[in-house]
Amino acid sequence: MWGIIATWRMALEGIEKAEGMLKEGGDAGDAIEAAVREVEDFPFYKSVGYGGLPNEEMEVELDAAYMDGDTLDIGAVAAIKDFANPVSIARRLSKEQANNLLVGEGAEKFAHKEGFERKNMLTDRARIHYRNRKKEMVQSELKPYSGHDTVGMVCLDSKGKMTCATSTSGLFMKKKGRVGDSPISGSGFYVDSKVGGASATGLGEDVMKGCVSYEIVRLMAEGLHPQEACEKAVAHFDRELKERRGKAGDMSLIAMNNKGEWGVATNIEGFSFAVAVEGQKPAVYLTKQENGKCVHELATKEWMENYMKTRTAPLKEL
Amino acid sequence: MWGIIATWRMALEGIEKAEGMLKEGGDAGDAIEAAVREVEDFPFYKSVGYGGLPNEEMEVELDAAYMDGDTLDIGAVAAIKDFANPVSIARRLSKEQANNLLVGEGAEKFAHKEGFERKNMLTDRARIHYRNRKKEMVQSELKPYSGHDTVGMVCLDSKGKMTCATSTSGLFMKKKGRVGDSPISGSGFYVDSKVGGASATGLGEDVMKGCVSYEIVRLMAEGLHPQEACEKAVAHFDRELKERRGKAGDMSLIAMNNKGEWGVATNIEGFSFAVAVEGQKPAVYLTKQENGKCVHELATKEWMENYMKTRTAPLKEL
Repeated sequence: MWGIIATWRMALEGIEKAEGMLKEGGDAGDAIEAAVREVEDFPFYKSVGYGGLPNEEMEVELDAAYMDGDTLDIGAVAAIKDFANPVSIARRLSKEQANNLLVGEGAEKFAHKEGFERKNMLTDRARIHYRNRKKEMVQSELKPYSGHDTVGMVCLDSKGKMTCATSTSGLFMKKKGRVGDSPISGSGFYVDSKVGGASATGLGEDVMKGCVSYEIVRLMAEGLHPQEACEKAVAHFDRELKERRGKAGDMSLIAMNNKGEWGVATNIEGFSFAVAVEGQKPAVYLTKQENGKCVHELATKEWMENYMKTRTAPLKEL
Repeated sequence: MWGIIATWRMALEGIEKAEGMLKEGGDAGDAIEAAVREVEDFPFYKSVGYGGLPNEEMEVELDAAYMDGDTLDIGAVAAIKDFANPVSIARRLSKEQANNLLVGEGAEKFAHKEGFERKNMLTDRARIHYRNRKKEMVQSELKPYSGHDTVGMVCLDSKGKMTCATSTSGLFMKKKGRVGDSPISGSGFYVDSKVGGASATGLGEDVMKGCVSYEIVRLMAEGLHPQEACEKAVAHFDRELKERRGKAGDMSLIAMNNKGEWGVATNIEGFSFAVAVEGQKPAVYLTKQENGKCVHELATKEWMENYMKTRTAPLKEL
């Protein structure tokens, strides 16, 4: 059995690429890296890699992580600027003896010495988004922090190796140096080939209050199906946050166990995700909450067409 | 009931200060911050705050975190240079709506704007340590990464509020931008006033592979005594690391529950810690492993005298 699951519709093309590799017996590390790179490279996704929206100083600062579920090797970068593929730097770091999590200028120095591709990650389109948001913030006191669509993936290969990876530009208009949950083990991601893996997207500041990815893997280790594990962890933590803080940030989690079974839970409406497993073509689902359960429906053709149309629609400067 | 527990002998003076506040009904946030600042300010501790050993570029880069167990608010800084008290910046960040974890230059900008004290954190003594290590590395291929004595604390006040905090200069000779477990929720620290808290010191790269602080709090939530929770989590994770990687990094964990009961477990020899609870004066213990259990003995007068003597002994340049 092999399989791969990822947050958001934007992961689909990456999932398709990974599927091609996994069904040929490809490695879960290679497949997940290729899949995340696909998302990082696509300029119309506003929250990952090239085209990602900048921080309040108009800099695109990126976070990414990679974890190997066999060895528990972790590599991660945070607040790194102007490298094309943060996930590949994270994977490279996972092979170091120490210094596996590097941030800011230090991460950039490492990436430079290792020969990773430099690229100005701020697109013209992101520049327009930035200027528009600046105007909106002045005019309407709009809350600056919308948009936190991290790509997070869990992958299982036919040898039973599992991996996890994340990549994001983080909150639009974040403070310089702000780091969310994506490069944080146990919060943004966690994987153990003996059990399974999980990854998060949402408000990183809240996700890391509950180590939700670790908790889901732990529940799967207790024998829960990934769907049960996701629902239990997300519902419990959403309740805790609301009880203590009056509100809970957006939180959507995906998981897969080492049998290729998967699950998804969210506390928002309209969460989409992409999945491919042996015997099941890559597909995009939308999650609805019904009576405390999360119900997944295949995205319709109309939804899929509309998705790409809105993502690539011309953007006017206000 | 109130109480406070902390990693390493170096925390003692801080614990004594916190004790004075807690027995007067002081707040767990104020007490833990004062306790950690005491350690940060003491120039002879080589791995926390002023006097902390530098990275391979001879810069003292500091990591710190603060967590409130009532609200689950987290604030943290990583790879921040030349501010006197990183724990206070972390606590200040925990009160922000978002952007609670800041790294590098972004963290420094925030701290500057908020008026935190600037200080060149590289002492003459640390400079000698650095130059000596450089020579040793050339002469003997000595492993550069020794010394990772993070101060981590868990505190309970008489109102039942619990907090957690960490502060460290990280691995001596680390790469620029390297971040360990100390500012990472669930790995270096975790606290929930409904249950208790835990904090770690050791090889951050390994601690974060297991989210050990979160796991200990979770085991306490299942009803385990802090001592059982620490031993179970550390023994299990140490085994997992050895099975998968052939070795496990140093790892020492302290914990306290919301009744003021405490526990400590370690996979090294000679781990010391400091604790004070209502009805028990501040004291330093040393932990020995006996038949898979961790046994704590009060530090002798000789040990205490020798400790400070070696810490403050004149340092010669090689």
